[in-house]
Amino acid sequence: MARKIIIDTDPGQDDAVAILLALASPELEVLGITAVAGNIPLKLTQTNTRKVCEVASRPDVKVYAGAVRPMVRPLVTAEHVHGDNGLNGIELPEPVMPLQEQHGVDYIIETLMKEESGTVTLCPLGPLTNIAMALTREPKIAERIKEIVLMGGGYFEGGNITPAAEFNIYVDPHAADVVFKSGVPIVVLPLDVTHKVLTTEKRIAAIRAINTHPAEVVASLLEFFERFDEEKYGTDGGPLHDPNVIAYLLKPELYSGRHCNVEIEIYSELTMGETVVDWWGVTDRTKNAYFINDVDADGFFSLLTERLARLPNY
Amino acid sequence: MARKIIIDTDPGQDDAVAILLALASPELEVLGITAVAGNIPLKLTQTNTRKVCEVASRPDVKVYAGAVRPMVRPLVTAEHVHGDNGLNGIELPEPVMPLQEQHGVDYIIETLMKEESGTVTLCPLGPLTNIAMALTREPKIAERIKEIVLMGGGYFEGGNITPAAEFNIYVDPHAADVVFKSGVPIVVLPLDVTHKVLTTEKRIAAIRAINTHPAEVVASLLEFFERFDEEKYGTDGGPLHDPNVIAYLLKPELYSGRHCNVEIEIYSELTMGETVVDWWGVTDRTKNAYFINDVDADGFFSLLTERLARLPNY
Amino acid sequence: MARKIIIDTDPGQDDAVAILLALASPELEVLGITAVAGNIPLKLTQTNTRKVCEVASRPDVKVYAGAVRPMVRPLVTAEHVHGDNGLNGIELPEPVMPLQEQHGVDYIIETLMKEESGTVTLCPLGPLTNIAMALTREPKIAERIKEIVLMGGGYFEGGNITPAAEFNIYVDPHAADVVFKSGVPIVVLPLDVTHKVLTTEKRIAAIRAINTHPAEVVASLLEFFERFDEEKYGTDGGPLHDPNVIAYLLKPELYSGRHCNVEIEIYSELTMGETVVDWWGVTDRTKNAYFINDVDADGFFSLLTERLARLPNY
Amino acid sequence: MARKIIIDTDPGQDDAVAILLALASPELEVLGITAVAGNIPLKLTQTNTRKVCEVASRPDVKVYAGAVRPMVRPLVTAEHVHGDNGLNGIELPEPVMPLQEQHGVDYIIETLMKEESGTVTLCPLGPLTNIAMALTREPKIAERIKEIVLMGGGYFEGGNITPAAEFNIYVDPHAADVVFKSGVPIVVLPLDVTHKVLTTEKRIAAIRAINTHPAEVVASLLEFFERFDEEKYGTDGGPLHDPNVIAYLLKPELYSGRHCNVEIEIYSELTMGETVVDWWGVTDRTKNAYFINDVDADGFFSLLTERLARLPNY
Repeated sequence: MARKIIIDTDPGQDDAVAILLALASPELEVLGITAVAGNIPLKLTQTNTRKVCEVASRPDVKVYAGAVRPMVRPLVTAEHVHGDNGLNGIELPEPVMPLQEQHGVDYIIETLMKEESGTVTLCPLGPLTNIAMALTREPKIAERIKEIVLMGGGYFEGGNITPAAEFNIYVDPHAADVVFKSGVPIVVLPLDVTHKVLTTEKRIAAIRAINTHPAEVVASLLEFFERFDEEKYGTDGGPLHDPNVIAYLLKPELYSGRHCNVEIEIYSELTMGETVVDWWGVTDRTKNAYFINDVDADGFFSLLTERLARLPNY
Repeated sequence: MARKIIIDTDPGQDDAVAILLALASPELEVLGITAVAGNIPLKLTQTNTRKVCEVASRPDVKVYAGAVRPMVRPLVTAEHVHGDNGLNGIELPEPVMPLQEQHGVDYIIETLMKEESGTVTLCPLGPLTNIAMALTREPKIAERIKEIVLMGGGYFEGGNITPAAEFNIYVDPHAADVVFKSGVPIVVLPLDVTHKVLTTEKRIAAIRAINTHPAEVVASLLEFFERFDEEKYGTDGGPLHDPNVIAYLLKPELYSGRHCNVEIEIYSELTMGETVVDWWGVTDRTKNAYFINDVDADGFFSLLTERLARLPNY
Repeated sequence: MARKIIIDTDPGQDDAVAILLALASPELEVLGITAVAGNIPLKLTQTNTRKVCEVASRPDVKVYAGAVRPMVRPLVTAEHVHGDNGLNGIELPEPVMPLQEQHGVDYIIETLMKEESGTVTLCPLGPLTNIAMALTREPKIAERIKEIVLMGGGYFEGGNITPAAEFNIYVDPHAADVVFKSGVPIVVLPLDVTHKVLTTEKRIAAIRAINTHPAEVVASLLEFFERFDEEKYGTDGGPLHDPNVIAYLLKPELYSGRHCNVEIEIYSELTMGETVVDWWGVTDRTKNAYFINDVDADGFFSLLTERLARLPNY
Repeated sequence: MARKIIIDTDPGQDDAVAILLALASPELEVLGITAVAGNIPLKLTQTNTRKVCEVASRPDVKVYAGAVRPMVRPLVTAEHVHGDNGLNGIELPEPVMPLQEQHGVDYIIETLMKEESGTVTLCPLGPLTNIAMALTREPKIAERIKEIVLMGGGYFEGGNITPAAEFNIYVDPHAADVVFKSGVPIVVLPLDVTHKVLTTEKRIAAIRAINTHPAEVVASLLEFFERFDEEKYGTDGGPLHDPNVIAYLLKPELYSGRHCNVEIEIYSELTMGETVVDWWGVTDRTKNAYFINDVDADGFFSLLTERLARLPNY
């Protein structure tokens, strides 16, 4: 039986690839996708989400618009990385499939209260606003969530949007604080992992060689996406972030990490949004997350390429 | 034409008196009342709100349950002040009137989007969670709110729950931060005012002399409520907080204050939830609130007593 | 036997009056005066201190230069209040008496270690840098200090340099934190008191009527000094701060206050340097200071005027 | 001509090795050594410093006691790492050589003002209290310091005493803040480097094989020192910290790093003392330090072993 997931996302090229990977994988049942403001404003992220579903020939997926801004702080976006529409790299047609009317936060709550307790996994790929607003609005969902598997944070790798903080957590640190204090089992795919998953020329070529339209889309998005980090880090290819969340669900054996305490900095501007990870167990704080720090990157790209090849050409 | 208001409340004896004052006043049209966790948990505040409406013989009022916890921090309550059920001082029957099904936050948003822009005043008497969650969920409401007239904070009077912070702001400082940064016109009835509005023996006696059941309820609630602060401050009578919000709407000439900048401390535990008021204009920060610091207390009690006398006896 | 004091100061007109009051009072033995950067830079404060001693015909007083900057933060000065040389209002001649060679901090330490334990009172009138640097450099002095009687902070009165903080504490909050955590008995003369000690026209006239050169100096300094706050507060006369420290030593019966806990905010920029006073005992934090909030202002000015009249004319 | 250095230290086994490395190297002229409270209290660090000088047969070295506690926060020590006397691992005789009478902070100031400007390098191996107190007491020294080459902090390696902070910076974050904002050229040898310099069995054996008393002392100290981190990190040997400062002075070609901005967190307890390093240049903050992140560890141990062999046997 497929694992039920809700993807929470702010596409973003790497979000798009994550969604495609999920929709191409029979092990996962995508109950719905909630969009959130993050890499770009909500109007674009919910539109982009639908565009991506249509790339996967899945106009039936239920897409919801969630939070238009972070809980407390003003919205910070990342057009310098993703381009002005978030999916720069290839022109995708305006989506035909509808946006659901329900608010994304309400959809998350309703779904968790309706589905059997302990069966639904949340997969946040952007700022944690929707998840935290759901947890705050209806605390009862906490014990019904199977797991939150999220992309965000960093420890040994430091931050990216600031020296101390990774973008997703930085944009809504208060939401992250709520999530990491919720008691829900959490798996973190941080920069420590995603910086080992580089979109090298060869790996993109392998995807392009699938020779379908969806594969072409992915290759083009990744080529645009990597340019920012290639220049910053001087590497062949840039880090690929969000698809690791889906790959972890599909093949956890590609990843390794450690149960430890993760706290979110919300009190100092200098370190705002930092994920403070007690990797070495130097405090007695409660272990509240499985923090992943290693990955079989070749295994990841094999999986990604194999799955993308399953998406129908058009 | 009556002024349209939504009361947001966590009764609490003084909340109860505020609600009764509003329901007794033809100048105000109470569109609905949203309950919030604060003085006591939400389950009690929404129940108490309905009890109070029934004391006013107004079972038709629409009462909504809102936020069950603050946006970011865990809930702190004040049973040491209000008693274990929040309305200690007199036994009120379980309410017969229903709780509305809609979430309080959604009701606030829907009402503001439906009513003519600039006609609805929000009257928060407790932590600002519902208001902030509405503003975060639907930022468009900001420009449609006529005014937020709230009880909370303190400057010259300091705090009450901590040396620096007043209870309502302290319980959800992040919500207060959102509200004070929203750009909505704000009037603040702080401790600076409410500590000048003492429930002296004589004033309570005047209320009891109305000799109706609602007046008897108010007198009994106030007698219980004042005991905590009478002991703390060594005064005849305790400060009466929340009804000042309603009295300000009815007779603003009873109050005086100053337009100034008010910022909320959310970064330090020591001063968490403090309302930092630039009363003397020593910064160049934007004036975002009308901060009231004086009141004609006798005028207030005359108004209160006169209005309570209008409530139907039963 | 006269009470031994060390005055620590950053003159400043009100510091000057405090020094003159001390030098005019036989109950006090001024062991030495240490200057600190504050209202104006150290070069001016140590020079001004000597100018003031010469106004009192006391070129024998030992004056030391102490800290040139706060412990951690950059120096903030207040020329907008005190004028460009700190003693604007009357032209005083360059001092002839020498500056001692020893560093003010070392002088404080040496004196406390040399004098009988429990006999020396420190009287800080400016930022607490010298006192804190002495306590940090030689922690043994803590138990040898009789008392620290300081001007600084505010609670019911709020701040002056920011909405939350009084100038002396704001300039070196870390020093204040060290002092208030030192365990030394502390008496605080805050804005709550000094704003009740107004330099009204009549009071200044009484001083001028003494008709000596020192009295003329004081009257002229106060007339300059008050202009800033008169405009700010719209009062007849401005608050007189620092002389309250000396007046408290001379006539404590003029003052009343409360033993309570005082903590210094050093973690948030918004409230940096705030003195958080647990006046109402709402926390279980240790009582570490006697916080004064009331004064017999007429009694104060009688004392001041009487003492200034004792200073030799020249 | 030998490079003039002042070593500032809190021995600690690795401090001891650093001192021995310096005293064994003709390229360096150790003007003096100042002790500071850190790994253990000051009474032990100044004593240990003298013990170590005697191990090097250098009773002529001038040793000064400096700060007995951090500038603002209470002292935190690390006996769990270094043992109860700081030099556990071998019994060293009580030192015969004297402690200088001058305070370490004054010695630093006097030396910098006396020696030709730009010729003296400071080598802090512990908390930066002495250095910061010197800079605060006499800001003029800032432009006279050739360079500060310090062991402290971490970025990619995270912290050790807390998840976010390295011990030396954590113990006195305010001192570190003063130093990093001083404008003095700074070279940082952080955990990022020292965790690559492991005291493996083979490397310690090579030192012991020198077969002199000083070498025996070093080998024994390192064997004790490494036990804590070997257990924590599960490595063969523990990180060797402080000697990297001296090795960098002797052979900078063993090290590589990057000029970047380093800020010290002093506002949040969670991340207190973190060195926030803008390694990737994502902010426009001024580059104020050369942050080293790589080392030729074999080259380091060759150098160390060769130099230790030069110390006279006894």
